[in-house]
Amino acid sequence: MSGSAEEVILVFEEGKVVRKIVEAVEAMIEEATFKVSPEEGFVLQALDPAKIAMVQVFLPKSFFSEIQVAEESFFGVNFTELVKIMKRVKSDDRVEFRLTKDSLTIVIRNGFKRTHRLALLPPEEFQVRSLKVNFTAGIRMDSKRLPDVIKELKGVASEIEISIDGEKAEFGARSERQESKITIEKTDPVVLDMWAEEPARAVYGMAYLERMIKPADISAEVTLEMATDKPLKLHYSIGGFADAGVRYYLANVSGM
Amino acid sequence: MSGSAEEVILVFEEGKVVRKIVEAVEAMIEEATFKVSPEEGFVLQALDPAKIAMVQVFLPKSFFSEIQVAEESFFGVNFTELVKIMKRVKSDDRVEFRLTKDSLTIVIRNGFKRTHRLALLPPEEFQVRSLKVNFTAGIRMDSKRLPDVIKELKGVASEIEISIDGEKAEFGARSERQESKITIEKTDPVVLDMWAEEPARAVYGMAYLERMIKPADISAEVTLEMATDKPLKLHYSIGGFADAGVRYYLANVSGM
Amino acid sequence: MSGSAEEVILVFEEGKVVRKIVEAVEAMIEEATFKVSPEEGFVLQALDPAKIAMVQVFLPKSFFSEIQVAEESFFGVNFTELVKIMKRVKSDDRVEFRLTKDSLTIVIRNGFKRTHRLALLPPEEFQVRSLKVNFTAGIRMDSKRLPDVIKELKGVASEIEISIDGEKAEFGARSERQESKITIEKTDPVVLDMWAEEPARAVYGMAYLERMIKPADISAEVTLEMATDKPLKLHYSIGGFADAGVRYYLANVSGM
Repeated sequence: MSGSAEEVILVFEEGKVVRKIVEAVEAMIEEATFKVSPEEGFVLQALDPAKIAMVQVFLPKSFFSEIQVAEESFFGVNFTELVKIMKRVKSDDRVEFRLTKDSLTIVIRNGFKRTHRLALLPPEEFQVRSLKVNFTAGIRMDSKRLPDVIKELKGVASEIEISIDGEKAEFGARSERQESKITIEKTDPVVLDMWAEEPARAVYGMAYLERMIKPADISAEVTLEMATDKPLKLHYSIGGFADAGVRYYLANVSGM
Repeated sequence: MSGSAEEVILVFEEGKVVRKIVEAVEAMIEEATFKVSPEEGFVLQALDPAKIAMVQVFLPKSFFSEIQVAEESFFGVNFTELVKIMKRVKSDDRVEFRLTKDSLTIVIRNGFKRTHRLALLPPEEFQVRSLKVNFTAGIRMDSKRLPDVIKELKGVASEIEISIDGEKAEFGARSERQESKITIEKTDPVVLDMWAEEPARAVYGMAYLERMIKPADISAEVTLEMATDKPLKLHYSIGGFADAGVRYYLANVSGM
Repeated sequence: MSGSAEEVILVFEEGKVVRKIVEAVEAMIEEATFKVSPEEGFVLQALDPAKIAMVQVFLPKSFFSEIQVAEESFFGVNFTELVKIMKRVKSDDRVEFRLTKDSLTIVIRNGFKRTHRLALLPPEEFQVRSLKVNFTAGIRMDSKRLPDVIKELKGVASEIEISIDGEKAEFGARSERQESKITIEKTDPVVLDMWAEEPARAVYGMAYLERMIKPADISAEVTLEMATDKPLKLHYSIGGFADAGVRYYLANVSGM
């Protein structure tokens, strides 16, 4: 661990946003390491224990109302512990993360002061990994409606087939007695953009998709990118910051 | 089964109404056969497995924004499967039922298209049965308040005694340590009408009454008719159509 | 029991208030005796089975829209039964308690009449007990925010340390991996008053505090009084009546 005697400080102006970011990570993994650096701001990357999915969070320095960091530092956090504290954070709470080598202190202010100090875990340093996939098709849509799509197919099957051909996106699930399909056409009002260099079709695990739609209200829009029999990339941008966001990668069921 | 090569089509303009009708049937029974005919529209009749209660649904042709049926046809449906799909239907979704000999396809439109195809069951043809009971007393009331009445007595006993004498209706339940009674007078604002050729008093099972009040918000009013030691008839009219409605019959606890 | 041939009658104009009073008692104890007297109105006192906490309710005669009582009378009530009935009471229901030697009849009116008769228990006569504690510090605050404080510390530990020094009140909980503290300063907007003849610090059981904050919305404000290693007194006033209220005493964990 590259530590620093100095405290690292991150201030989130809106409690709701930091709560949703923490929940988005915890949906995928219990423990994760994040990096805070003078160049990149906040970066998190974690692979789920089954190595089927990955979550990444990028929050540039401009995202924070205050940030203090002298040198690149890594911090290991138990997100299951952290999410319990975050559940008590209200939308308009001001939230500070104060990090030392050993502990994360969360200071929440709104009328009065609430302080929670968590012991840190040994961090696992990482390099940000960008999946070498040539995504050939994608859709950018109203993020509120994607959970509707996934939940409508939930219970039919444990896998969901997604296909995008540039004119329509289809989400299908099939069991012995039931066959269900959601069709979103390029001209439907929920679509902000749809494209395909080449039509794409792949199958993904329902349980993972359900976890990846949990933080849907973090953003007004969500982008899905995919390629035939390749992983899915699902991206929520945050707060109108081009580079700020939560990104998931999910393996095609035939392997990542 | 009297089938037809042609598809039978029923279009419900308001998703909320068809969802509540399906829930009203499923509250009583898992599998049921309905009939679609050029004369009668949609008719369903099903007896609960214990033969204590019966549910009937009548939706005349004028009830549908579109209906296509060439000849009388019967369709066997697993309502437990159907209700799961219906849970995802929003109030203003437009819902189509497309029926062939083998399958029910539900097409839901609202912004984008969702399609669910269910395998059908072998239908059991039926004649609509009208109970030969001379109902001597009844009450027509605000349907929103009937669930309050039943739930207030729930937990006291597993049976409920109802009596109507034209001036008041009483709903009573009794246990070793508690005695509870709801009295609705003819002049109370929840009453739309109350009558009695002859005062009536009978006892019904609480668990069945609880199932029969589930769809109370399908209609602004509900009508109860009864006779001493005879079955109860409970009717919800739908959408201002005189002939459209959900009707339950429930045996007096001493037998139907 | 000092009984009376005459019925004792208490009329609560607002269903919500009587429901919350019943819930406040039931949070602490299953069975309790209350007294109704021409001088004092309604008085309840009950010790929880573990003798860690006590609840008292005082409702002077002026609190009731109607009260009828000829002589001091005690009534034993199963509050677990009563709370189930009260759950069905709506905010604007008018609620009457009609008490005889053997039964409590609750008459609820709102559109129509609902009557519940409960068998009474043998009463245990009591003298109102005032704890002989010299409370040296206290805080009067917005009652809506006290549950936030307790719930934010819930899950960290089974005990909570409270300290008040006249300038700030602190609520702390600690586990092996986490340390949490809520600090309320005298100048914070949630504080109506704070005082200390002598700074106080004591430790109380989380489970009891959780039960004592349940009725927080019974009142706009709550008062905590304490002394070092001594019991906590927590008081909700009701309906703007100086003498009407629910009061809890809770032993310091090292004994009452």
